Amino acid sequence: MRRMSGRPIVTFTSDFGNREYYVAAVKAVILSGCPEANIVDISHRVASHDLLEAAFTLACAYPFFPPRTIHLVVVDPGVGSSRRAIIADATEHLFVAPDNGVLSLVYDQTPISRVVSIEEEHHFRQPVAPTFHGRDIFAPVVGQLARGLKPTRFGPAVTDFVRLNLPPVSHGSDAVEGIVLHVDKFGNLITSIRPEDLEAAAETKATPGRLRVNGRDVTRQVRYFSEGEGEELFYLVGSTGRFEVASWRRPAAQILQAKRGMPVQLSYAIEGG
Amino acid sequence: MRRMSGRPIVTFTSDFGNREYYVAAVKAVILSGCPEANIVDISHRVASHDLLEAAFTLACAYPFFPPRTIHLVVVDPGVGSSRRAIIADATEHLFVAPDNGVLSLVYDQTPISRVVSIEEEHHFRQPVAPTFHGRDIFAPVVGQLARGLKPTRFGPAVTDFVRLNLPPVSHGSDAVEGIVLHVDKFGNLITSIRPEDLEAAAETKATPGRLRVNGRDVTRQVRYFSEGEGEELFYLVGSTGRFEVASWRRPAAQILQAKRGMPVQLSYAIEGG
Amino acid sequence: MRRMSGRPIVTFTSDFGNREYYVAAVKAVILSGCPEANIVDISHRVASHDLLEAAFTLACAYPFFPPRTIHLVVVDPGVGSSRRAIIADATEHLFVAPDNGVLSLVYDQTPISRVVSIEEEHHFRQPVAPTFHGRDIFAPVVGQLARGLKPTRFGPAVTDFVRLNLPPVSHGSDAVEGIVLHVDKFGNLITSIRPEDLEAAAETKATPGRLRVNGRDVTRQVRYFSEGEGEELFYLVGSTGRFEVASWRRPAAQILQAKRGMPVQLSYAIEGG
Repeated sequence: MRRMSGRPIVTFTSDFGNREYYVAAVKAVILSGCPEANIVDISHRVASHDLLEAAFTLACAYPFFPPRTIHLVVVDPGVGSSRRAIIADATEHLFVAPDNGVLSLVYDQTPISRVVSIEEEHHFRQPVAPTFHGRDIFAPVVGQLARGLKPTRFGPAVTDFVRLNLPPVSHGSDAVEGIVLHVDKFGNLITSIRPEDLEAAAETKATPGRLRVNGRDVTRQVRYFSEGEGEELFYLVGSTGRFEVASWRRPAAQILQAKRGMPVQLSYAIEGG
Repeated sequence: MRRMSGRPIVTFTSDFGNREYYVAAVKAVILSGCPEANIVDISHRVASHDLLEAAFTLACAYPFFPPRTIHLVVVDPGVGSSRRAIIADATEHLFVAPDNGVLSLVYDQTPISRVVSIEEEHHFRQPVAPTFHGRDIFAPVVGQLARGLKPTRFGPAVTDFVRLNLPPVSHGSDAVEGIVLHVDKFGNLITSIRPEDLEAAAETKATPGRLRVNGRDVTRQVRYFSEGEGEELFYLVGSTGRFEVASWRRPAAQILQAKRGMPVQLSYAIEGG
Repeated sequence: MRRMSGRPIVTFTSDFGNREYYVAAVKAVILSGCPEANIVDISHRVASHDLLEAAFTLACAYPFFPPRTIHLVVVDPGVGSSRRAIIADATEHLFVAPDNGVLSLVYDQTPISRVVSIEEEHHFRQPVAPTFHGRDIFAPVVGQLARGLKPTRFGPAVTDFVRLNLPPVSHGSDAVEGIVLHVDKFGNLITSIRPEDLEAAAETKATPGRLRVNGRDVTRQVRYFSEGEGEELFYLVGSTGRFEVASWRRPAAQILQAKRGMPVQLSYAIEGG
């Protein structure tokens, strides 16, 4: 049996917002199952039904939590339908979520030893509201996991779990292409391109050149934000390990009229080439 | 003496918002009184001075918390005036709030064994700021309750506590009438009508028919949101046990130009009738 | 060694917002260092890079926390540059923040026994992201402090720490002058003027008279908000111990078209004079 020492940590990500009763009801049921759980919010302000934003936010945050943390995600437009509820066991971390692709970036980042379909209804609150599985299915399951119950107790292993169809970073002979993966609250554009994508494309050490987004070329690379001047655009490798476009005095997203999903090209030169 | 085993849970609902220092100051004083308290936010984004929204949010969330949870509500437009501060003892739960009707839906949902007027000033922080009883009166009282002090230690029992004058669901011969009780962040309209209101009106099993709101008839009933198509309006029994009007691709509140407080009629047919 | 009994309390103030992954990543690293830490949010909705708002919010909240609380502030426009990271030891409380003046109001309110420059890199997460010292420097330091490590273990004492250049309250012969220090979510204008400023100016007991802001005179003083009528403007001594301008039915900031930083004059009369 998976045993926790000390207070088990549970993270919680949703699109419920911070105004409604939904977040508190989920926490109430988790605490009813496991009073010693330490519940840490990742975000509840994911845009409604936005699986990519939820996937991105979770993927950026979860690696920093201690081993054995349980991560609950409830962004669940298909709630009540036949979409599955799953537990993904990544050895170091457990993830509990609807099987709608919201764990796609987790699957990319870390080996998953098993995905379980949650089917053992005697663990659920009864009656289950068809519009709030977060409270009536996910929360009691998380409470039991936090008490040490093994994921396999909740249903059979499955292998055909859902992945989002994310555009991969594509490698050209002198540039790689990705997308704007996220626009953060400072207006920074976080792209899907990582330094290692350049090296993979160049097959050797490569120096990033010009980053093109929404018809504009951003040419200056810096290490941190305050190196920028005024409304100058620049790019840097951000805290998520991806290239970001930013500006010092005005949100880059505003200057560039840029949105999530827009294509981004980053040219490169072979080092010493 | 009311004893807590493990960490006492305190919930906190207010209209303080998440930007100001107010929420943290209240939590600081609770933790000063009871360092082991586990404080869970219900919502701090209740509209300023909106007693009905606070009452609704609390009433939806509190039943899911473990027995012995203490629920603090600070939506308190009359702070500093002669309005009372009260503790409502519902055996399973304790509620601490200004006596302004914000507990009305709690009184409707659960038997209250005693309501105490908070008057024992030696429990307060001194001096009491006339504009922040949340910090200087409610928080120290909650801290002491969390440590196990009995409600009766804070003042005399009272019976003339305040209730909001909520329009009751009214029963007609082929329809019941209620109001839009809440518009949630997904734009769903949560009405005050419950399935049991239909049965009470029909005096037998009844089938809901057409739900009328702001001049529009909504005729399709579904079980969960993704049964809907496009911008079609539908209704369902939501997670609060009340009829809700929703739509799949666009917020129903926007389609219907509907607001909290608007009247709603739900027609019904006698089953087998 | 500074020892904590029970769960160490850590407060957290930032401009990260509640939508992004940043707050959770910082908490994750703190909990990795000190799993028993009780992390309490003060606010994450400080305006981006707004040192004064962060300083004000922290200064209002921290005094109510129990002794030995550790207060983390990450409003850090200069992140990655050569600006220092510091620990300010106020005996009763510890503060961890960038050395950019965000602790200025703390320095004004409480004696600081020592300010330490954080330099011992073996305590940091490696590699340190130049854009996220909150996660990679501040959080591990806070985790270690919460476990009981002494501030002096993190670097040398410094005396030339940064203070914001806040306009002091100035004393005239029949009025004191200050600024609007903060506009809260209720639209109340919190000024920098305290009752003791009047007495300092008058050199005896003084009665406040007319409060002038943005060309309007506010003449009525009340004790609490609901003493006001309709859209009448009034002032009172608020919960932060400063004069505030407010209105009962409409936000004062809206009536007065007033903003943070605007000058405020409060006239006074000598009592019995």
